Amino acid sequence: MGGNGEAVTASSETMPGFSAGDLRDLTGEAGRVLGSLRRHGGGPDGSVTRLVYGAAWREAMAEIEDWLSEAGLEVRVDAVGSRYGRLAGDDAGVVLTGSHVDSVVHGGAYDGIAGVVIAGCAVRWLRASLGRPLRTVEVFANCEEESSRFVANFWGSRAIVGAIGPDEPDRLVDDEGTTIAEAMRGCDLDPSRIGEARRGDLAAFVEPHIEQGPVLAEAGDVIGVVDRIVGVRVLSVHLAGASGHAGTVPMSGRRDALAGAAEVVLGAERLAGRRGAPAVATVGAVHVQPGGFNQVPGSTGLTIDFRHPDEPVLDELEAELRGLVERVSAARSLDATIARHLSQRGTRFDERISAHLAAACQACGVRWRRMPSHAGHDAQLLAGVCPAGMLFVPSQGGHSHRPDERTELEHIGSGIEVLVRTLFGLAYTRW
Amino acid sequence: MGGNGEAVTASSETMPGFSAGDLRDLTGEAGRVLGSLRRHGGGPDGSVTRLVYGAAWREAMAEIEDWLSEAGLEVRVDAVGSRYGRLAGDDAGVVLTGSHVDSVVHGGAYDGIAGVVIAGCAVRWLRASLGRPLRTVEVFANCEEESSRFVANFWGSRAIVGAIGPDEPDRLVDDEGTTIAEAMRGCDLDPSRIGEARRGDLAAFVEPHIEQGPVLAEAGDVIGVVDRIVGVRVLSVHLAGASGHAGTVPMSGRRDALAGAAEVVLGAERLAGRRGAPAVATVGAVHVQPGGFNQVPGSTGLTIDFRHPDEPVLDELEAELRGLVERVSAARSLDATIARHLSQRGTRFDERISAHLAAACQACGVRWRRMPSHAGHDAQLLAGVCPAGMLFVPSQGGHSHRPDERTELEHIGSGIEVLVRTLFGLAYTRW
Repeated sequence: MGGNGEAVTASSETMPGFSAGDLRDLTGEAGRVLGSLRRHGGGPDGSVTRLVYGAAWREAMAEIEDWLSEAGLEVRVDAVGSRYGRLAGDDAGVVLTGSHVDSVVHGGAYDGIAGVVIAGCAVRWLRASLGRPLRTVEVFANCEEESSRFVANFWGSRAIVGAIGPDEPDRLVDDEGTTIAEAMRGCDLDPSRIGEARRGDLAAFVEPHIEQGPVLAEAGDVIGVVDRIVGVRVLSVHLAGASGHAGTVPMSGRRDALAGAAEVVLGAERLAGRRGAPAVATVGAVHVQPGGFNQVPGSTGLTIDFRHPDEPVLDELEAELRGLVERVSAARSLDATIARHLSQRGTRFDERISAHLAAACQACGVRWRRMPSHAGHDAQLLAGVCPAGMLFVPSQGGHSHRPDERTELEHIGSGIEVLVRTLFGLAYTRW
Repeated sequence: MGGNGEAVTASSETMPGFSAGDLRDLTGEAGRVLGSLRRHGGGPDGSVTRLVYGAAWREAMAEIEDWLSEAGLEVRVDAVGSRYGRLAGDDAGVVLTGSHVDSVVHGGAYDGIAGVVIAGCAVRWLRASLGRPLRTVEVFANCEEESSRFVANFWGSRAIVGAIGPDEPDRLVDDEGTTIAEAMRGCDLDPSRIGEARRGDLAAFVEPHIEQGPVLAEAGDVIGVVDRIVGVRVLSVHLAGASGHAGTVPMSGRRDALAGAAEVVLGAERLAGRRGAPAVATVGAVHVQPGGFNQVPGSTGLTIDFRHPDEPVLDELEAELRGLVERVSAARSLDATIARHLSQRGTRFDERISAHLAAACQACGVRWRRMPSHAGHDAQLLAGVCPAGMLFVPSQGGHSHRPDERTELEHIGSGIEVLVRTLFGLAYTRW
């Protein structure tokens, strides 16, 4: 997985001096801004809850606007409330970099917003040190990615690629019954103008993000060059047998749906294990009926979440699971139904972006690796309209979406330096 | 399991004539009474919900009182509301027969009350055909056995054996917050007088009951002579691992509590299977946290219900399960806690009662078998104060505690005849 054999593009090595002092200053700045932004929606246990269009989100967006303005960037708000900080160039096409500002409920202080801060620090240095680029560079502070208030499904990046349906603003509601259209109007945004957020001018998108998993931290690597996002295939299986009294039904006459489900749980684990990394399989939800301690389970529902970069492998895993369920059901006289709960194709990022990121890592001298992302990100939407890629910084302990989510400040600094060199290649050289 | 090799006591064979016409009449009477009693608490789907001290229960008890009186029995109510119909004899000691009147929520029309009706029909015939017995015979219409309104835990038979604690009347509450003391007062019963229900005069107890399982129906047997009630040992197991993102945590680094639980589910099934009948093991309840389809389960709780007549076997099953949980937890780096949720010793009924029942089956010429009960019954409480035993009639399809619970009227008739001959032996002869 290491990148030692990678070809290094000349561009990032020819960049004018990025000093140890620059690294120290930008790292300090990132730490200060992250510390300030975590106050918006921050809880006493270190958690952050910053839901799109809510009060904490508005405070954070206002602070980000001020910060980008102070860096000398031209700030604007798009039709769904995402913020852009622009460093104008002369050539056609915009190099976009950043991530999302919203968080999950009771999440941490890094997911999403660390990418905004890394991007802001990188572009700040480029403007101050190198001045006007060939291509325009913009910092992207995306309004929404987490689906934590509305089932908004990448709201900000869907607006950019023109993939928000006309019925969605009045259809999507939060737990309190507020529609996303009403929530937008509360932020002085006009839902009828969502179409105006669409962009046709993007030349590249680079998203810095925390890994949210343990791979980098465990390997001692500092940067992950993410060259693909795995596909997700979630199946729901329902097994129906016969309920009965835990005492009076002999073992030999049972049609125990939970026992069948247990075989499926272990079988799904075996399927992913046999296939090897990066394949994963997770049974996250199990529901047993009737559910009393003294009742043989008459029916059991469960979900199986498969992830792999290659669609044909997901097809094979699904077929293998269906075969397994069939064998288990036949052996136990259960009636099985299987449905696709979710099917999301994998994304392969543009190799030119990955090569720029790899070259930047080489130039910085950090430990890095190429890797897939097993979680979804804005970059997979934007990859549909421009060359896109991602860089990961390590998550301590692999923890994410929880209050103890954390990335070492030193690693944030390395992310900034790698992004600086990547953006130099993308916006200050012709590729 | 067949009883062909059983010694037959003389008593039941020497009973004066019980004709085919008697059988037909009593079967018809039982069908009529069961049909009438199922109206009290009956739902449109054939279900019956008759909870202790409720309106449907009061109606059913009033009808039973009238029916027993019309049969020429002397009816009385004890301190907890159980009804007795007495056919007086001269010798010391009472031969008691019957079962409970209450039902589970949304149960059937046979569990409990079929035993009351079989007992009432049998004693009605004895009085009409044989007159005064040597020993007094009483029909028992027990107020409560199911714990379906209060966690009353065999309320009626505990009252008889003096095992109701002084704090229970004001402590036990139903779902609406009504105490069992208040519910009793609503039926003109005085909770302070519960102690008066205790009986020291019992010479024998025979409980007719539906099997609630498939053994008799599948074998084509008509009567089960129940010579023991199995012990119940319920363990609750909690497995704690590490939750995480279904995508970002690689298979190799997982501590998936549900996968561990699945091994325990299958292991418990294997333990009972290896031990062979009558051992049974049931995992009826599983709770997974956090429970999202895209989250690796961080913790899972489950219950394991073991049943076997022999306490040492239950001890071994528990020890084997604890060993299994230890091995699974060690292999998967889970933290396990195991607790006993319930431990109820098995009961072996008095062999004299079982022999009387077996002899009666032989005399009737019905297909029968000796068998254990895998469910708890009033007879296990009364076995503590007098020789006790049970006879089972078949449950169609093994179904119980559900609206389609059903016993063929012909089998009810056979139960009446077997009980008549058994009571003849117990109350009209000296044994």
